[in-house]
Amino acid sequence: MTTVYVSGHRNPDTDSICSPLAYAVLKNKLDSSQKYEPIRLGNVSNETKFILDYFKVETPMLVKDVEAGQKLILVDHNEFVQAVSGVEKAELLEIVDHHKINFSWPNPIFVRTETTGCSATIITKMFRENNVEIDPQTAGLLMSAILSDSLIFKSPTCTPEDEKICRELAIIADVKDVESYGLEMLKAGTTLAGKTVEDIFNVDFKDFVEGSVKYGVSQVNTMDIEGFIQSSKSDMLTYMKKLTEKGEYDFLLLLLTDIIKEGSLLISTGNVGIVEAAFEIKLEDDVKYVPGILSRKKQVIPVLTKTILG
Amino acid sequence: MTTVYVSGHRNPDTDSICSPLAYAVLKNKLDSSQKYEPIRLGNVSNETKFILDYFKVETPMLVKDVEAGQKLILVDHNEFVQAVSGVEKAELLEIVDHHKINFSWPNPIFVRTETTGCSATIITKMFRENNVEIDPQTAGLLMSAILSDSLIFKSPTCTPEDEKICRELAIIADVKDVESYGLEMLKAGTTLAGKTVEDIFNVDFKDFVEGSVKYGVSQVNTMDIEGFIQSSKSDMLTYMKKLTEKGEYDFLLLLLTDIIKEGSLLISTGNVGIVEAAFEIKLEDDVKYVPGILSRKKQVIPVLTKTILG
Repeated sequence: MTTVYVSGHRNPDTDSICSPLAYAVLKNKLDSSQKYEPIRLGNVSNETKFILDYFKVETPMLVKDVEAGQKLILVDHNEFVQAVSGVEKAELLEIVDHHKINFSWPNPIFVRTETTGCSATIITKMFRENNVEIDPQTAGLLMSAILSDSLIFKSPTCTPEDEKICRELAIIADVKDVESYGLEMLKAGTTLAGKTVEDIFNVDFKDFVEGSVKYGVSQVNTMDIEGFIQSSKSDMLTYMKKLTEKGEYDFLLLLLTDIIKEGSLLISTGNVGIVEAAFEIKLEDDVKYVPGILSRKKQVIPVLTKTILG
Repeated sequence: MTTVYVSGHRNPDTDSICSPLAYAVLKNKLDSSQKYEPIRLGNVSNETKFILDYFKVETPMLVKDVEAGQKLILVDHNEFVQAVSGVEKAELLEIVDHHKINFSWPNPIFVRTETTGCSATIITKMFRENNVEIDPQTAGLLMSAILSDSLIFKSPTCTPEDEKICRELAIIADVKDVESYGLEMLKAGTTLAGKTVEDIFNVDFKDFVEGSVKYGVSQVNTMDIEGFIQSSKSDMLTYMKKLTEKGEYDFLLLLLTDIIKEGSLLISTGNVGIVEAAFEIKLEDDVKYVPGILSRKKQVIPVLTKTILG
């Protein structure tokens, strides 16, 4: 029996793992003449791993490139630069996506794109349109993908249809409290557990120079600021103080950003007066939670620059 | 209220008139916040005119080009060279099509393409998926488009789904005998009534030279060979004889091709012996119906060439 790969995009996020898994289920129910096999093009994130564990679903097979003539369905992408290596020589059967369109293909194929916040929303609609019942595991995957892409309905890309369908899927998946599940899931994805303070600090660190002042700002997403304070704050301060004491930086700032709570914990060492003046705060035990601060580029650097340059 | 144009392709065939008409009906039922207006980019064919008259549907508005920002839905096409002039500056909302894909757009939009033989098949599915009842007029338009694109289910592009949906639409449209209706419709599209023999002869006439023999072959599609024989054969022969008697052509051949009966009536003047030898026939009253002859390029010219060159 011919195998049709059902693939998400490169550097797969949760939608690009869960939607191909669910779509392969649908396709296998609708067409028994071929085998529809979900594949992934990269490592699964901690968030996705949480979902697969929660609903006891096997991780899709990792595929690096496809051979000429390989039957292929693209989910959650349509641009070939985001697709599996070898896509140009594959036999493209379908595309199901919610991104801008940028591709051409010499034959008519099935394409379904919508302006939803998540591919999983479209795939749920396709289950229904084809009168195929959604099993609880698949519902869990689809629900999780919507929660992930929509940041639990908070993202501006989230449509009322995404939320409605997600809540309906939760009933099938037997998830009583969608918001709690979503938080747990996002938390799993941004967990800092198991990482050294050096790892955390260097996830996304940038140097800045304003006049004679050299400083560095690191930012990391987490849903567990409290957990960090308890387990890692003290080690992090030791690490950061060692750096500022070397004299290379006038001050260092670490932003632990919680996109759901919509705020950041500020941790600073060295000449912390600049940070305190910039944000009109007083650090308490070397840290301060500031609501509303989400963007280093838009909300932090401009304020520091203004303070430094006066 | 904003108007959204629902447009078929340039040089519209029946699908490109009927599917936009039907899709506008669906969109107006689903979304009352905007007005969905079917448009056409060119003259309607005699076939399409027959359908609009039969189901008492108004001909869509003719639009030559659209202004910047005009909201637009493309049906039965996706390549911009086939779309309304100004499409690049329009606000493209949706595409519903069954052709190969060749376009890009900077935002996510709704796209639905399938490998069906007709856009109307996809649009019928969308009515059903959205649980919108199809009224008899709209069913008639959709059914007619499928009959047209599929040549009453005979075209190799026709899928079992096209035929199934077409027959279901016929019940809604209260058309008892789909095949008879389809024949009547195709016949209306290929009627030669009202055309002079000169018009008919010059619809698609080509000159050929093989060695010292110069000849001409004209081909015209019709579903009413009998009607032609009764009303125009005699005038056509007079016209063609005048041409061959001038001496410019050794012989002339007119193919009146019936794509449904799958054969052609051959009418020849001048040195008709070449035609008789080539097809191993004997003209009767200057004409002969030859079953199976459909393609001038593949079935007529090669045989004539071989006969002439020996």
